[in-house]
Amino acid sequence: MLVVLTGGTGGAKLIEGLAAEIDPAQLTVICNTADDAVFHGLYVSPDIDTITYTLAGLNDGERGWGILDDTFAVLGQLRRLGNDVWFNLGDNDFATHITRSRLMAEGLTLTQVTERIRAALGVKATVLPMTDERVETRVVTPEGELSFQEFFVKERWSRAVESVHLIGAERCKPAPGVLEAIRQSSAVVIAPSNPITSIGPILAVSEIRKALRHSVVNVVGVSPIIGRAAISGPAHKLMAAQGLEPTAFGVAESYRDLLNRFVIDSEDRVLRSRIEGLGIRVLETAIRMTCIADKRRLARQVLALLEK
Amino acid sequence: MLVVLTGGTGGAKLIEGLAAEIDPAQLTVICNTADDAVFHGLYVSPDIDTITYTLAGLNDGERGWGILDDTFAVLGQLRRLGNDVWFNLGDNDFATHITRSRLMAEGLTLTQVTERIRAALGVKATVLPMTDERVETRVVTPEGELSFQEFFVKERWSRAVESVHLIGAERCKPAPGVLEAIRQSSAVVIAPSNPITSIGPILAVSEIRKALRHSVVNVVGVSPIIGRAAISGPAHKLMAAQGLEPTAFGVAESYRDLLNRFVIDSEDRVLRSRIEGLGIRVLETAIRMTCIADKRRLARQVLALLEK
Repeated sequence: MLVVLTGGTGGAKLIEGLAAEIDPAQLTVICNTADDAVFHGLYVSPDIDTITYTLAGLNDGERGWGILDDTFAVLGQLRRLGNDVWFNLGDNDFATHITRSRLMAEGLTLTQVTERIRAALGVKATVLPMTDERVETRVVTPEGELSFQEFFVKERWSRAVESVHLIGAERCKPAPGVLEAIRQSSAVVIAPSNPITSIGPILAVSEIRKALRHSVVNVVGVSPIIGRAAISGPAHKLMAAQGLEPTAFGVAESYRDLLNRFVIDSEDRVLRSRIEGLGIRVLETAIRMTCIADKRRLARQVLALLEK
Repeated sequence: MLVVLTGGTGGAKLIEGLAAEIDPAQLTVICNTADDAVFHGLYVSPDIDTITYTLAGLNDGERGWGILDDTFAVLGQLRRLGNDVWFNLGDNDFATHITRSRLMAEGLTLTQVTERIRAALGVKATVLPMTDERVETRVVTPEGELSFQEFFVKERWSRAVESVHLIGAERCKPAPGVLEAIRQSSAVVIAPSNPITSIGPILAVSEIRKALRHSVVNVVGVSPIIGRAAISGPAHKLMAAQGLEPTAFGVAESYRDLLNRFVIDSEDRVLRSRIEGLGIRVLETAIRMTCIADKRRLARQVLALLEK
C-alpha cells in the first residue's frame, strides 16, 4: 500500500502517473481540505475533486481543475441571477457539489461522501479527506484576511502576504482510515503540492504528523518548486511570507522530520548538498510534468526511490 | 391592477397573452406552491418558475416547463453519480434552484427570493407565491400516498387516484402582498389551471378564498378542460377522484362562490345553461392555446369580459 499526501494541481499530476504505474487499488490518497469552501450554498472540496476526477480520467489536465470539456451553463445563469461568480464551476462539477451537499445535509461525513463519489466514478484508489472536521487556511494581507480561494482565485494571488494560518487543524481528528493507511503503508509520498496551503494543513493535523514521524517506511517528497518559483501557483510567495526559503531546500526543510528522500529538479542541483545536510537523500531529475509520459516517468522514479 | 391565480403550464399560456396585451406592471400573479419539492437538496417551485420564465421570455412553450434551449449536463452527471433523476431539471433551471436554496438557507422567504429572481430576469409583473409556508398536495392511490410531482412526473399520472388532500393549506397565511393585491385589484382572473392541484391549493388558503369571496370586482375563470379531459395534465382524473364532474361545468361549480364570468370552449356549448344556472355568465370561444396569437386573442377576450 502506497500513501500519498496531496493538494490539487501538482499533486494530481504525480498521482495520475502513479495510478498508471501501479495497481491503483494499492493507492491511498490523503487530500488537503483546508481550501474547501461553500459557493452558492454548495460545499466544494477542490483538492478531493481534482484528485477524484484525475483518478477517474475526467480531469482537465490543461487547466488543472474541473472536468474535461465541461460546460458552464449553470454559472452563466447564476451570474444573470445576480450571483457573484468569481469561482469557476462547470456543470458536471456542479453535479458533484450538489450531490455532496445533499449527502452532507443528510448527515454523511465528507469521508463517506468522497467514498460514494469515488465508487460512482469507478475510481479504484482510496481517496480520503485529511479530516471530516472543518479546517480553514487564512491568508493575512495588509488589506485584511482572506480565505485561500479568495486569495488564490478571486485575487489571483496578487496581494502581498503577511502570513498564513490555519483555523481548526491542530485539534481536529484525522478522517477515519487516514492513520490506518499510514500505519499499513509500505511507503509514503509527499506530492509536489504547496507546502504551506496543501501539504501544510495535512501535516498540521497533529495525529497525522505524529504517525508519519513514527513511520519506519520510506517517505519521499517531490519538490513543487524549481529555482525560486512554484511550477504553478503561489507556493514560493506563501513560503517566503512564512519565513521559509522559497526553494526546494525550503520545502525539504519544512518536511525534515518526516522525509528521507527528496526529488528536486536538475536545475536545482546546487541545492543538493544543503538538502543532504538535512539527512535526506536527493534525486535530481526533470520534475516538470507536461504530458502523461512525464507523469509516468517521474512516478517510476519516485517508486524506484521508495524501494531503495 | 389585474390579479391572476395560476398553476404552471396552462395558466402560463394565458399569462403570456395577458402580459402582451396590457402593461405587465399592472399584473400580479399569485402562484400555487403546493407542488414545490426538494430535489437533490434544492428547493424547486415549479409553478413560480414556469410563470417567471414565461414572463421573462425564457420559457419553453412547447414543453411547458423549464427554460428554452436549456442543456442537461448537471442532470446527466447527477445520474452518473448515482442520484435518482426522474425529475427533469435543465442547467439554467438549476441556477434558479441553487440561488433560491442558498437565499432561503440565509433566511429569505420564498416571496423575497421570487422577487429577487423576478427582478434579475427583468420581469415587470409581480409574481407572488400563495404563501411562504409549506403546503403540500398529496395524492392517495391504492398503492399508497404520493407527492404531486411523484404522481405527475415520476408515475406520469398513470395510477388510480382515490383522493387528493393538502397538508398545511388551511392554517397557513397568504404571502405578503397577496391579500393587498386582491383588495386593490380591478379584476381577478382564475387561469386555466388544474382546479384540484393548482388553483385548489391557492383557494384552500382560507384568507385568500375569503378575500376573493368578499371582492366586488369581476372574477373570470377560464376552463382548463374541453369535453371530459384537461387540455394538458390530469385535472379531469383528479376532479373525478374528488367527486367533481370532470368537465368545464365541474370547474365552474368548484369556483361558484367566487366566479361571475367563465370562459369555456365552443365544443362545450352544451354546458352553457348549466353553468349559467350557477349564476355565472359564460363566454364560448376557442380556449386551446397553441401559439402566441391564440394566447393574445384569448387574453383579449378575457380582458373584454372583465370590463363588461
